[in-house]
Amino acid sequence: MADFTHFNEHGRAKMVDISDKKETVRRAVACTSVQMNKEVYHNIVGGKNKKGDVLAVAQVAGIMGAKQTSNVIPMCHPIPITSVDLTFRWEQKENDLYELHIEAEVKTKGSTGVEMEALTAASVTALTVYDMCKAVDKAMVIGPTYLLEKSGGKSGDFKRVKQ
Amino acid sequence: MADFTHFNEHGRAKMVDISDKKETVRRAVACTSVQMNKEVYHNIVGGKNKKGDVLAVAQVAGIMGAKQTSNVIPMCHPIPITSVDLTFRWEQKENDLYELHIEAEVKTKGSTGVEMEALTAASVTALTVYDMCKAVDKAMVIGPTYLLEKSGGKSGDFKRVKQ
Amino acid sequence: MADFTHFNEHGRAKMVDISDKKETVRRAVACTSVQMNKEVYHNIVGGKNKKGDVLAVAQVAGIMGAKQTSNVIPMCHPIPITSVDLTFRWEQKENDLYELHIEAEVKTKGSTGVEMEALTAASVTALTVYDMCKAVDKAMVIGPTYLLEKSGGKSGDFKRVKQ
Amino acid sequence: MADFTHFNEHGRAKMVDISDKKETVRRAVACTSVQMNKEVYHNIVGGKNKKGDVLAVAQVAGIMGAKQTSNVIPMCHPIPITSVDLTFRWEQKENDLYELHIEAEVKTKGSTGVEMEALTAASVTALTVYDMCKAVDKAMVIGPTYLLEKSGGKSGDFKRVKQ
Amino acid sequence: MADFTHFNEHGRAKMVDISDKKETVRRAVACTSVQMNKEVYHNIVGGKNKKGDVLAVAQVAGIMGAKQTSNVIPMCHPIPITSVDLTFRWEQKENDLYELHIEAEVKTKGSTGVEMEALTAASVTALTVYDMCKAVDKAMVIGPTYLLEKSGGKSGDFKRVKQ
Amino acid sequence: MADFTHFNEHGRAKMVDISDKKETVRRAVACTSVQMNKEVYHNIVGGKNKKGDVLAVAQVAGIMGAKQTSNVIPMCHPIPITSVDLTFRWEQKENDLYELHIEAEVKTKGSTGVEMEALTAASVTALTVYDMCKAVDKAMVIGPTYLLEKSGGKSGDFKRVKQ
Repeated sequence: MADFTHFNEHGRAKMVDISDKKETVRRAVACTSVQMNKEVYHNIVGGKNKKGDVLAVAQVAGIMGAKQTSNVIPMCHPIPITSVDLTFRWEQKENDLYELHIEAEVKTKGSTGVEMEALTAASVTALTVYDMCKAVDKAMVIGPTYLLEKSGGKSGDFKRVKQ
Repeated sequence: MADFTHFNEHGRAKMVDISDKKETVRRAVACTSVQMNKEVYHNIVGGKNKKGDVLAVAQVAGIMGAKQTSNVIPMCHPIPITSVDLTFRWEQKENDLYELHIEAEVKTKGSTGVEMEALTAASVTALTVYDMCKAVDKAMVIGPTYLLEKSGGKSGDFKRVKQ
Repeated sequence: MADFTHFNEHGRAKMVDISDKKETVRRAVACTSVQMNKEVYHNIVGGKNKKGDVLAVAQVAGIMGAKQTSNVIPMCHPIPITSVDLTFRWEQKENDLYELHIEAEVKTKGSTGVEMEALTAASVTALTVYDMCKAVDKAMVIGPTYLLEKSGGKSGDFKRVKQ
Repeated sequence: MADFTHFNEHGRAKMVDISDKKETVRRAVACTSVQMNKEVYHNIVGGKNKKGDVLAVAQVAGIMGAKQTSNVIPMCHPIPITSVDLTFRWEQKENDLYELHIEAEVKTKGSTGVEMEALTAASVTALTVYDMCKAVDKAMVIGPTYLLEKSGGKSGDFKRVKQ
Repeated sequence: MADFTHFNEHGRAKMVDISDKKETVRRAVACTSVQMNKEVYHNIVGGKNKKGDVLAVAQVAGIMGAKQTSNVIPMCHPIPITSVDLTFRWEQKENDLYELHIEAEVKTKGSTGVEMEALTAASVTALTVYDMCKAVDKAMVIGPTYLLEKSGGKSGDFKRVKQ
Repeated sequence: MADFTHFNEHGRAKMVDISDKKETVRRAVACTSVQMNKEVYHNIVGGKNKKGDVLAVAQVAGIMGAKQTSNVIPMCHPIPITSVDLTFRWEQKENDLYELHIEAEVKTKGSTGVEMEALTAASVTALTVYDMCKAVDKAMVIGPTYLLEKSGGKSGDFKRVKQ
């Protein structure tokens, strides 16, 4: 059985030693979504031209959130993020519900992967959408949130199907 | 149609003015979960006695994450959090999958609610579980993440059923 | 001659004691500007509809910057900001130069004023505009940056003419 | 036997609920010291007039450090610090050693005490002195670090003798 | 017409991808100033010997501010700053006004330039001077703030005349 | 006499220029301790199985604290920490006192040493133990805190005896 790597010989948490790992370009993509009712949807979409742009704010939050990953996730190594890009896609669901799909791609040229940075960027983007729309509806649902793919590094590539 | 409050008269984002709102005790509870395979589950549960305790680390991360909410969510007001508590519950699903349910309760005595603090605490807790277990399995799924209940403040109480 | 208040009896810096000051609503407005050439101007203004919106990003940065004031300015007290609003205004100057005027209004209900929060919000907004346009022109000039007005608190109101 | 308060009914860490505690003025004083050899001492003391002033930098670091307490100490509540003051005192020891005594006084008008803020301010001040002098001598010793006194709040006053 | 690089193909903000850029030594120098009346000037200059040293505090703030650049400016890459130095120069103007000139030099060995770090360091230094002197005069003016020179990197060197 | 390196030619603090230093693996170990009475000791030790685990929280705090070093210590360079590990050891002293020894080992692959990161990690760990136990006893004493050893880098290795 594979073992957790985040514990020392006393069984206590440690930051895994990556001193000997090579600096290579690494990339990860994470997905999440925000499910909302028709009213919130129309407020966001209408906002692009007429009023404030919720997604513009959420995009900035997600990019800045990626940079806070190692300050917020205890065992994450601080790494020099070299790229963050976020994309949005709308899907109409049944029962007058709408789903905003969020995809976050992060790259680094470093000694460890950026899975957590991509997941954090996606999460902060979704939380910001929630925050800006919660005056209209508090029942919005975030997620599922998951890693879509990663490449680079010794542990090999990973890819799963979108949910 | 209810309007978004996070935009000024030029249609640009602003931090909503809460100068005249009363300081009262406010409380919010948010939920999320991490779905994982049997191997990860056994690693975490076994860890409680034998090795490192993943949930202990995630709990600290969630509490500290609650305090970072207004630094990470752009339009959030900085408020004096007076309480954070996180609880975990396991559920066995079909197909040898296990779900770790995370519930975050946050309180403040302030001029605005703590929905975002509870949602952020829950999200950071889940992300930390993912981080510490991803060496074993990268296909874990976080969420759905949602507000379970809130009380206090002028906008009234909110309560939804657990998913 | 009025004395500096930020030093203790040994002549060393201290954070001034405001334990006995009343919590009242306080407000401050600060101004700055970014002077740029025609090409940068057209890129920003065109962006509103066609491409990315520089000012939307700068606005978010300014609001988040206001919340970082006491982390960045050593002797600033941490205070609960209750409102941040930023407005932009364009002015065409001679020699094909354009000036983007930035006005930041910050409020608190606290024991000390928010002059520094307003000045920091304005500065961070201007720096972000510079950052996003510097690939086109590095010769942009920020400022002058100054306090336009403040109200609330024992030291009385302050108001100056716009430059 | 008195019990720890930082754990919930599942035995996991929580941020203690202070929602119902009164906001009063609270004060704490912490002490630490840096023990150094003669060469470091002369470099610091000479610096006051001739060159850079180590203690001025350490003082700023300590004041800013006090404001970071709740970001660094997991279960600390974020509270509005209203005053930070640091004082230094030199003592000549035997064997050509010198001890720099550091005293940090912090105040708040809040719902919980500032013991941790005072201890953190003192510690960061001492660490900064070490950092700026370590090119000359790495064998400096910090501490003992301890709470000298606290007042305000329900748990009563505390006072111990200086070590 | 040169294009902005900070937007993706959907016209939304992104952090530019620098994964393929070379790590080289890069340097940037930014300038700003604080204009003040005679009374503030004499308070600052007198402070060097007699009382607290405003410029010592501002210098520390500027150096620490440089390190916060990528946390405060949304699209800035986190880079390993290798050097920060700040210098001050006084100029007597007409009408009993004095101008404190601030020059910030920042270096990195990284994949992108440090223009924003230098501009941020200069701005935070000036804001700190304002903060520490505002009890005496709130009418001080900061700036103009601008990039004086940069070198290193593919985009070539930049140099402008001091204003 | 060796000189301080943290000052520029005007005698003001600067961040030392490390642009030309080689990136090599560097390691530092720092020690501190917390001295406490029997009651606190039994509360902590009993907690491992029965209740909350103080040391688990302190361990997370120390690891996260190491990552905050360059944000808290003014002249510290931001460096990519590649490993943090903390270990605890108990010693029974006379007079019913117990001492918790804390050892922090930090590594980087960077251009400067990690002495400050190790000392900061150790200090934050000790402060967190104090915080979580202070409801039982406020008279605990932290330290002495010191560098035990460092290796890597041009300035050579350093090693001292444990106190």
